[in-house]
Amino acid sequence: MARLHLCSPAGFSASGVYAGIKSKKANDVGMIVCDRLATAAAVFTTNKVFAAPVKVGREHIVGGKLRAIVVNAGNANACTGKQGEADARAMCQLTGFAIGCDDKRVLPSSTGIIGHLLPMDKVERGIAHAAHALGQDREHALRFSEAILTTDLTRKEAAVGFKIGRQTVTLAGVCKGSGMIGPRMGPPQATLLAYLTTDAGISAPLLRKLLALATDSSFNAMTVDDHTSTNDTCAILASGASGAKIDSARSIKAFTSALNEVCQSLAYQIAADGEGATKVVKIEVEGAQSESDARMIARTIANSPLVKCAMHGNDPNWGRIVSAAGYAGVPFDPDQCTLTLQKVMVFQKGRPAEFNAERLSKLLDAKEVSVQLACRLGSARATCWTCDLSKEYVTINADYHT
Amino acid sequence: MARLHLCSPAGFSASGVYAGIKSKKANDVGMIVCDRLATAAAVFTTNKVFAAPVKVGREHIVGGKLRAIVVNAGNANACTGKQGEADARAMCQLTGFAIGCDDKRVLPSSTGIIGHLLPMDKVERGIAHAAHALGQDREHALRFSEAILTTDLTRKEAAVGFKIGRQTVTLAGVCKGSGMIGPRMGPPQATLLAYLTTDAGISAPLLRKLLALATDSSFNAMTVDDHTSTNDTCAILASGASGAKIDSARSIKAFTSALNEVCQSLAYQIAADGEGATKVVKIEVEGAQSESDARMIARTIANSPLVKCAMHGNDPNWGRIVSAAGYAGVPFDPDQCTLTLQKVMVFQKGRPAEFNAERLSKLLDAKEVSVQLACRLGSARATCWTCDLSKEYVTINADYHT
Repeated sequence: MARLHLCSPAGFSASGVYAGIKSKKANDVGMIVCDRLATAAAVFTTNKVFAAPVKVGREHIVGGKLRAIVVNAGNANACTGKQGEADARAMCQLTGFAIGCDDKRVLPSSTGIIGHLLPMDKVERGIAHAAHALGQDREHALRFSEAILTTDLTRKEAAVGFKIGRQTVTLAGVCKGSGMIGPRMGPPQATLLAYLTTDAGISAPLLRKLLALATDSSFNAMTVDDHTSTNDTCAILASGASGAKIDSARSIKAFTSALNEVCQSLAYQIAADGEGATKVVKIEVEGAQSESDARMIARTIANSPLVKCAMHGNDPNWGRIVSAAGYAGVPFDPDQCTLTLQKVMVFQKGRPAEFNAERLSKLLDAKEVSVQLACRLGSARATCWTCDLSKEYVTINADYHT
Repeated sequence: MARLHLCSPAGFSASGVYAGIKSKKANDVGMIVCDRLATAAAVFTTNKVFAAPVKVGREHIVGGKLRAIVVNAGNANACTGKQGEADARAMCQLTGFAIGCDDKRVLPSSTGIIGHLLPMDKVERGIAHAAHALGQDREHALRFSEAILTTDLTRKEAAVGFKIGRQTVTLAGVCKGSGMIGPRMGPPQATLLAYLTTDAGISAPLLRKLLALATDSSFNAMTVDDHTSTNDTCAILASGASGAKIDSARSIKAFTSALNEVCQSLAYQIAADGEGATKVVKIEVEGAQSESDARMIARTIANSPLVKCAMHGNDPNWGRIVSAAGYAGVPFDPDQCTLTLQKVMVFQKGRPAEFNAERLSKLLDAKEVSVQLACRLGSARATCWTCDLSKEYVTINADYHT
């Protein structure tokens, strides 16, 4: 079987073109179009400072129906006032005009620098070009996935096929994100951008609910620098073209499983491509009093610059991990807890465990590092993904603007 | 007038000696002794993972009376279980024995790596040596201020003299702190260590109250990496030897002013000596709905790695500042707010302001950078100090342990 991609679900086409918005010559305007009115759901940043396309996107998602997604990279259209809002609306109008649909059936997104007006002449030409360049093959899906990148070094995609009765359903997604990654997305409310397509048939309320749940255990459980962007957006379009309906307990379970798998794979790829990252750190907290406590502990550990630097240096400096758990602001008792790094016990019930530091340091020199904290206060658990903090992160971010 | 120091307040002597606990040859055991039973107050870390000396210190401060403070650097005595607690108590016993007081009148502190037992043979010799080496001159005060340092590059001290009626009162302090600095100290609850001496006469309850207030607008309003330490401690000893009593509105006002000045100076020195720091960033938020909202906005901006990297690169990337305010989790409206960097307006009421980016970048190349955010939602204000994030921070922390 050919490798699945964003346009594998029946009914979808995509494109990515170069319009000159990014400073480097690379695709910077992308479009996903469904050949029919798709059922749609989206979650957006909870930042009180949200970009113009987020404002417009929240309006357009209300009816749960979309035909297209239009995205530019290289400029976030955030903190741009009334002109910025007019520009985001114009992106929808231009897209609607080009593909033949109401502008309210288009979801706009932007990513890049904050506080600059969009170069609308370039955006206009880019949208017209993108609409003409639509295609359904893997190459077109790849061009879209490139068009949404900023400081990312890699394209990010994931897809699964599964059966609902006798019908084969496909669910695919692409995303971008490398810095300013600390998503806290809420219902209709990351600069994480993620777009999912599926040919399943599903109601808008159910799609909204399942997307919110999947987001919480994937994008919202991942952090690079904990800076919640003004533009974070995750949207899914369901064409229904497979003929399979997601309306029974069994079909919902299969769809949920596929949705979680794709969202978690995409979130993992963002952590792996975090600005300056050399490794992914997977933090699993178990035995917390509540799931929100477990998430808070995992995220507090994930966001400690000291923990992230130790991970970069392959340094088994576990005291930084335990102390981060202690200031998470939720119930935690070091005398009850056990901490393992790469399955090696380093701390047990308030006391250091004996371990070979040199050997553990070698184990930490890996593409993925496992941190497991057992709290022994309850039965709730949570996982958070992050990356290490390297000098390269500073290089990238000390001189992004000028 | 000679420069004031930790032992300028009448009644105090200090020492700092080398005991071999630090890996480099530098003073690592220090002692402050009052010639009488001093009125005392202290605040400690609110981390649920707190070091053994914090546990013992909380017990010993209850009565509001202390004779001495004993400190070692090079080992935090945190996450060290029952043996760690016994070692912290032994530090008090050894000090009490050496200077002739009850061990419960001694406040112990430790700072350094987490999760290693104290080398008690070295600690014991160090304490005996420190007790013999006590002196009241500036040189002795300096030795103490060196003995508490870890990754710090500079000693940190501050002192003021003021009049209460006809009496001259002196209030002095020293502190350490460079990394793992995100103090959240509470009554009797920073690895910020700060010790203050004064020859004012004051009651323990009033001293406790004034120390807590001063801490909130100084140490607790300062962050390097927002990692709240297991060992943070700020303690003050009041000998009363000046003859001046702090018991009237006027004397309380004079004492409070001196206490705030010394604490804010010390906190500023920690930010300036933050690991890898090249500059101090002063973030002033005004017009918030409440003081706690103002603090939360200021601290969220101060902790954003993106803001800190931009400051390091002299990059007027103000979108990172406004977006950080937006995810602080408190009321904030970009359409109402105004942001200035080094007094240059960059953002006004939801829209970018016109400014010369090249000129502003040159203004940001300074030892202290001013960020002023006017929220226009209320009348509350707060200030937070932080430092920039440089590659040197990563170098220091990717390889501290091994």
